[in-house]
Amino acid sequence: MASPEIDALTQALARLPGLGPRSARRAVLHLLKKREVALTPLLRALEQVNERLSVCSLCGNVDTSDPCAVCSDPRRDDRLLCVVEEVSDLWALDRSRLFPGRFHVLGGRLSALEGVRPEDLSIDRLIARVAGGGIDEVVLAMNATLEGQTTAHYLAERLEGHPVRITQLAHGLPVGGELDYLDEGTLAQALRARRPVA
Amino acid sequence: MASPEIDALTQALARLPGLGPRSARRAVLHLLKKREVALTPLLRALEQVNERLSVCSLCGNVDTSDPCAVCSDPRRDDRLLCVVEEVSDLWALDRSRLFPGRFHVLGGRLSALEGVRPEDLSIDRLIARVAGGGIDEVVLAMNATLEGQTTAHYLAERLEGHPVRITQLAHGLPVGGELDYLDEGTLAQALRARRPVA
Repeated sequence: MASPEIDALTQALARLPGLGPRSARRAVLHLLKKREVALTPLLRALEQVNERLSVCSLCGNVDTSDPCAVCSDPRRDDRLLCVVEEVSDLWALDRSRLFPGRFHVLGGRLSALEGVRPEDLSIDRLIARVAGGGIDEVVLAMNATLEGQTTAHYLAERLEGHPVRITQLAHGLPVGGELDYLDEGTLAQALRARRPVA
Repeated sequence: MASPEIDALTQALARLPGLGPRSARRAVLHLLKKREVALTPLLRALEQVNERLSVCSLCGNVDTSDPCAVCSDPRRDDRLLCVVEEVSDLWALDRSRLFPGRFHVLGGRLSALEGVRPEDLSIDRLIARVAGGGIDEVVLAMNATLEGQTTAHYLAERLEGHPVRITQLAHGLPVGGELDYLDEGTLAQALRARRPVA
């Protein structure tokens, strides 16, 4: 019985990750009742982003400028390049403020199952960036999944012969991880990569 | 490091019920990556709703037309009036398609704690609607909470003397409710309102 406009809004919100039909309905109701503080700011923010949205032509990040904020930040170290699968991974690492270098977004991972081949990812552009020089180290920050690690191996091979250090994120116990609750794969990784006590 | 526009969008989404900072970020990323199928439809839907949003001058429903879709539906029974606390309650009852009459939204419930008095709710307008005639039954569909029931009692008193039947929703076991898991209040209600087996 809700109007078609309200239905359309509910459906658009319900398609967002983390929201279902029920929570979308609650969100719509909130937007309708709090027009000034909820609906208007959301509408303005969407308009702004929609107007300026672009994919960074250097690293593949999504931002409102091209080059993106990360690529155009002069304080970052050009000699360090971190390769990630998705924009979300770039954001996660960037939020941690632990990596002072640049990024490269592959746009996915190699997957026989999903039919994702090397030419479907931004790999040629990565090789070109590295071949362009000025990079000392490439950090392969793929997910610790089978497909992520396959992709990392493939990239390591493709980067062979270029004068760069190739590294990858350490695998092992997560902070706060209790042995009793961790899966065998993580335990095996942690054991294999054990190191002398300093 | 995300642009101010993207931050603003994340914050606007994070304020919706059911979304927090983390899920808002995931939603934003989804919107950015799926511009055509996610961002654009959401933006259009918000624009449409924002342009046409209005509060129904008859019942207090929020809709994109005034009178709202429920009030202007000719198939509904004018003699039945269901009083609810909030717009969300109207929507819930309307979705069930079980109530064939009209609605009246109070805009809240009486609450000493929150300082909500009768004049803060749309009660005078309700009395006027009933006094206007043509209504046979007023269904008080308040929440089964202390404040909801206080409000219902108050309304019943105010409506006394008008030639209408005043009813309220039944209280008792919810469908699928197991006695062992129900609170004592519900059990007491169900016992008090017990009826002969047909």
